[in-house]
Amino acid sequence: MNTFGHKLRISTFGESHGKAIGCIIDGLPAGLYIDEGRIFQELQRRQGGGHFSTQRKESENFEILSGVFQSYSTGAPIAIIIYNKDIKSKDYENIKDIFRPSHADWTYFNKYGIRDYRGGGRSSARESAARVCAGSIAKMLLEHFEIFTHSGIFAIGNLIAQNIDFNFAKTSEIHALDSQLEPQQKELILETKKNLDSIGGIALIQAYGKIPVGLGEGLYHKLDSQIGNLMMGLNGVKAVEIGLGTKSSQKKGSQNNDMMNQNGFTSNNHGGILGGMSSGENIDLKVYFKPTPSIFITQQTQNIYGQQTNINLKGRHDPCIAIRGSIVCEHLLALILADMLLLNTSAKIEYLEKIYFSKN
Amino acid sequence: MNTFGHKLRISTFGESHGKAIGCIIDGLPAGLYIDEGRIFQELQRRQGGGHFSTQRKESENFEILSGVFQSYSTGAPIAIIIYNKDIKSKDYENIKDIFRPSHADWTYFNKYGIRDYRGGGRSSARESAARVCAGSIAKMLLEHFEIFTHSGIFAIGNLIAQNIDFNFAKTSEIHALDSQLEPQQKELILETKKNLDSIGGIALIQAYGKIPVGLGEGLYHKLDSQIGNLMMGLNGVKAVEIGLGTKSSQKKGSQNNDMMNQNGFTSNNHGGILGGMSSGENIDLKVYFKPTPSIFITQQTQNIYGQQTNINLKGRHDPCIAIRGSIVCEHLLALILADMLLLNTSAKIEYLEKIYFSKN
Amino acid sequence: MNTFGHKLRISTFGESHGKAIGCIIDGLPAGLYIDEGRIFQELQRRQGGGHFSTQRKESENFEILSGVFQSYSTGAPIAIIIYNKDIKSKDYENIKDIFRPSHADWTYFNKYGIRDYRGGGRSSARESAARVCAGSIAKMLLEHFEIFTHSGIFAIGNLIAQNIDFNFAKTSEIHALDSQLEPQQKELILETKKNLDSIGGIALIQAYGKIPVGLGEGLYHKLDSQIGNLMMGLNGVKAVEIGLGTKSSQKKGSQNNDMMNQNGFTSNNHGGILGGMSSGENIDLKVYFKPTPSIFITQQTQNIYGQQTNINLKGRHDPCIAIRGSIVCEHLLALILADMLLLNTSAKIEYLEKIYFSKN
Amino acid sequence: MNTFGHKLRISTFGESHGKAIGCIIDGLPAGLYIDEGRIFQELQRRQGGGHFSTQRKESENFEILSGVFQSYSTGAPIAIIIYNKDIKSKDYENIKDIFRPSHADWTYFNKYGIRDYRGGGRSSARESAARVCAGSIAKMLLEHFEIFTHSGIFAIGNLIAQNIDFNFAKTSEIHALDSQLEPQQKELILETKKNLDSIGGIALIQAYGKIPVGLGEGLYHKLDSQIGNLMMGLNGVKAVEIGLGTKSSQKKGSQNNDMMNQNGFTSNNHGGILGGMSSGENIDLKVYFKPTPSIFITQQTQNIYGQQTNINLKGRHDPCIAIRGSIVCEHLLALILADMLLLNTSAKIEYLEKIYFSKN
Repeated sequence: MNTFGHKLRISTFGESHGKAIGCIIDGLPAGLYIDEGRIFQELQRRQGGGHFSTQRKESENFEILSGVFQSYSTGAPIAIIIYNKDIKSKDYENIKDIFRPSHADWTYFNKYGIRDYRGGGRSSARESAARVCAGSIAKMLLEHFEIFTHSGIFAIGNLIAQNIDFNFAKTSEIHALDSQLEPQQKELILETKKNLDSIGGIALIQAYGKIPVGLGEGLYHKLDSQIGNLMMGLNGVKAVEIGLGTKSSQKKGSQNNDMMNQNGFTSNNHGGILGGMSSGENIDLKVYFKPTPSIFITQQTQNIYGQQTNINLKGRHDPCIAIRGSIVCEHLLALILADMLLLNTSAKIEYLEKIYFSKN
Repeated sequence: MNTFGHKLRISTFGESHGKAIGCIIDGLPAGLYIDEGRIFQELQRRQGGGHFSTQRKESENFEILSGVFQSYSTGAPIAIIIYNKDIKSKDYENIKDIFRPSHADWTYFNKYGIRDYRGGGRSSARESAARVCAGSIAKMLLEHFEIFTHSGIFAIGNLIAQNIDFNFAKTSEIHALDSQLEPQQKELILETKKNLDSIGGIALIQAYGKIPVGLGEGLYHKLDSQIGNLMMGLNGVKAVEIGLGTKSSQKKGSQNNDMMNQNGFTSNNHGGILGGMSSGENIDLKVYFKPTPSIFITQQTQNIYGQQTNINLKGRHDPCIAIRGSIVCEHLLALILADMLLLNTSAKIEYLEKIYFSKN
Repeated sequence: MNTFGHKLRISTFGESHGKAIGCIIDGLPAGLYIDEGRIFQELQRRQGGGHFSTQRKESENFEILSGVFQSYSTGAPIAIIIYNKDIKSKDYENIKDIFRPSHADWTYFNKYGIRDYRGGGRSSARESAARVCAGSIAKMLLEHFEIFTHSGIFAIGNLIAQNIDFNFAKTSEIHALDSQLEPQQKELILETKKNLDSIGGIALIQAYGKIPVGLGEGLYHKLDSQIGNLMMGLNGVKAVEIGLGTKSSQKKGSQNNDMMNQNGFTSNNHGGILGGMSSGENIDLKVYFKPTPSIFITQQTQNIYGQQTNINLKGRHDPCIAIRGSIVCEHLLALILADMLLLNTSAKIEYLEKIYFSKN
Repeated sequence: MNTFGHKLRISTFGESHGKAIGCIIDGLPAGLYIDEGRIFQELQRRQGGGHFSTQRKESENFEILSGVFQSYSTGAPIAIIIYNKDIKSKDYENIKDIFRPSHADWTYFNKYGIRDYRGGGRSSARESAARVCAGSIAKMLLEHFEIFTHSGIFAIGNLIAQNIDFNFAKTSEIHALDSQLEPQQKELILETKKNLDSIGGIALIQAYGKIPVGLGEGLYHKLDSQIGNLMMGLNGVKAVEIGLGTKSSQKKGSQNNDMMNQNGFTSNNHGGILGGMSSGENIDLKVYFKPTPSIFITQQTQNIYGQQTNINLKGRHDPCIAIRGSIVCEHLLALILADMLLLNTSAKIEYLEKIYFSKN
């Protein structure tokens, strides 16, 4: 239940304020060059920093424990661990009996009968660092086949990008896609933060390059179903759309259909996925994040004894989880595509022939 | 890859114009009363009919082949089969070398190297009848524990419901939620159909009743991830949202958070899911359907030889797949909740004690 | 729980005296020629007949419902159904409240709280016909790559084959491997049957041909673990061994180790599996079957009310389940190898390169 | 592929001479008291020592990284890590291009194209320490419900126990079940070792206590299939048998069947499993280990260039892997039973009622 993927499988563990978090990546082919520096870079991208995300300095000193020999994957499972440092569990002691509104506190306590109040425990977004480790290895696999993923912030609150520039996003502290809108978006975040509040946002994720046609398996392991699965399962996500997405529900077929000529598609309303498989076009998706529920305004809630009470939070929380979320989503898309790429190797008998008769 | 669920598993088979479609439902507890009449009713609801859906009279004469003895589930897998009748494969012969725009034709051919042109083959929405069979059994399980699901049409094109009445939806030919808007919505569909075109729409799905807190497992089998998975994987769906959904991305935390008093939540912006688990509130979700790509207007496309060509469709196609889709989504939600209910039985040691020490 | 395999997955359904049994085969590559005559032949081999197996004439008129188009696999799941005929449920009415000794009756009733007394219900060996259907398709896939499986009876009771002749086994009514021993083995079976008793036996299974080195995945999906899984899970099997098997426990390393020269192994004590993977040598295994528990001698047992009682069976039962069992095991081995062959396609990056860069 | 179990899932990672080995245990119910001292004890039992096993002092200083809060399981995945110490990779440098006969070297190199020569890499029996960690937690769960497992050495070479005393085995350096035979068995091991050779052996494993009837799921997740799976997949195992096992193949039904009276079974030839489920009787199984292939006598083999060559091993190897193997098997049986116990919670609707209606 803490494992994702069918051929490339990632299992994660760890709580926000436990000893360590980490993951096992199973099913990666042998012979892939594993660039540790790249993992570090991707963790840095996720970490963000400055005034726009949590002040917690997460020690991203990850360590690869297994599955890599002389810098190449061996086919054995790759375990990666990140020790937790800079933990301030004390910040949470005043709320150890109180549920934060709109937070996993309520459901976890009711399900498991245990209140691990320290920083969200297993439900903390901290776990997504493990996803980024795994995702960065997935990216290395994809890039070997010239498939790439990138991402950025499409909207902060109601400040919606008019121009999309993925390269600008790489340099922006808030991963903004629209360079002209970025200053306003930053200001909105800072103002929200000053008001002890938080704000929602939208991330735009894209895969591009030599995407083969046909990634996606059967009817319950479709490419879009797996995107729906992983993206919707990420902390704070309340909606996911592919291609035209919500807007396609208002279209006529004649408006929405993508025509073809001898060179392929002439438009990409379908967002790169048809019949649950990659069409070869860019894969475009948007992920909608709610504002982080952890705000510093006094709120009305229940305690674990069922009584109404007020809550006043301490701790360090992102004013806008969409920012870090966009990087995580980009890595999740890479994980999905890598899994599908591996599964696709037995789609037709012709592929098997290429492998098994190649010695002769 | 054609199997969904972890404890309650459904595997489907069959093509639109093959001999039969069907499913195996595995993992259902023994001792559940199986009401065949109810399965029939749910298949009827999905079938829709009249002027608003396909004219194909799908024979919903399903047959339960196994797993039920004297009307009760035995714990063995339940196989259900629906033979295909009223097949008009001839309608498809003129397009057997041509890809329908924005259709699975293109991806299936490229992946598998085979063109099963008859009515969409495996990619046809026909398969969703098997999902409804399985879902109706899931509903029986849920209803035993007083958990219910219902659904309706929230929007056809840009005609968006202002009032939500799930009971009205049960009587409406187009499953409309808004009785006052229904005539306009019907007219829009008919006009679109007359113009040889199709139209998108939005389905609203809800679970209600005695929903236990805590349904949803781990970080990769969350309740919302499974909803994202199954809904996004359904034919024609391009966006899924839970609770406030896309709108939550524009909110402040102080606006979006749901407060509590001693009686529980005072609002439900979270749509019944927090931290990937049911909160006990109603589960609310919207599913956005694109217009069916099969329209009767001449369109520009490719054939299997890579040449540009025009396509003129025959056959029978729903002008608005959202209508039947809403019923399917309702059943998918039931499947997810039933799976989670069964998985939840080992969430805490206290549950096991109730079962294993009960004899003493 | 009624599904086996990771990439090539088989899910079965059906009870001995229900309407039908069958299976879904998921994950088969597209483009494999499906020879229905071959499925029929393999079902015939399993059925056996004459005086040496059950007198029930199982109608092996199977039907392929999906996944095959113009005689080739399409990549969609293949559903196969076999309707149950020649059912004599009346034979079981006198024991509907009584547990047959050493039979699944006891455990099924206690687990599920339901007594489906008709011919063993789900626990009947009848289900293995579905395994043979799936296995015969697995054999077609393997044979495409020049990998073959065969089998035979190594022992009936304590009559143990001294000479192994798989070709003779193909012509023997009891699948005997030793032509000289066959008459005695037959006589032992008939005499046992005359005494209203049953007898145990041992099946020998072998895979040969161009077996690639390296089939078997990770540490929990090893080739031998999967053999242990499927063989031990077959009705009536109480022991499984690979290569020297039980005898290897009495050897020194210097006796048991298989040396190599430049041409490969000079012996095969390891039975074709090292480190959980195929070594390229023949895969040799033995499966030990207990005598069928359904005998016609009066036996002492319990009824469902916990009272001691006697039981006198009617019905039709194999005097020696090893005979039909050998054919089933042969098909199970094929299923395992086919699954491993498909999984192996993503073992190293070099394989992926062969597939994905082949267009350039 | 490095994951076992359906509800209680264990995923392992790590190589013999890598930085660490470990596992993630997912699906354990919340609220179980986790006794770290017990894990240590079980690791000590596996380690063995003295003259009868490897001289490598494996540092069993395991660490629990997650999933436990204030000594109780939280429902989150439990990660356990064991750092590798006392590594002497140099011992392996002289064989880095040479395959050890009857060893996984050959198959791993051929599958993955990489030779991780250090101490067997992923194929090393070292990984079984992770299984013991997981198994000891499974034992804690089982013992909460008064189900227990124990084990011992049934045979070393052809020295076969005549008397079975599981308590003696707990005190014996070689886990011998027969106190009178122990001195001879020890002598045989030491002599074999002196001759630079190794020896096979047989482990006997038993589960006892309040075993519920009905553990085991469906037809492909039977209790015996899972035993066959895990035991046969353990390093060096070449045969597995349950109850009478191989001997049952020589019996008549009238000899092999276990009768019942009003108190239950009057014998246990079936070894506690009928129809793939626990019968409530003790579960008895034997696991046959080959002699460790790593011997110090000069042997003829191939190198990675396909040339014939001789090999002379250094390093530290158990003269008889059955000894440590018996402890590992005991833990594997605990893992299987715990998984089945959790799965069984949704076997019948009556169980669910106990959980869900308990609040009223």
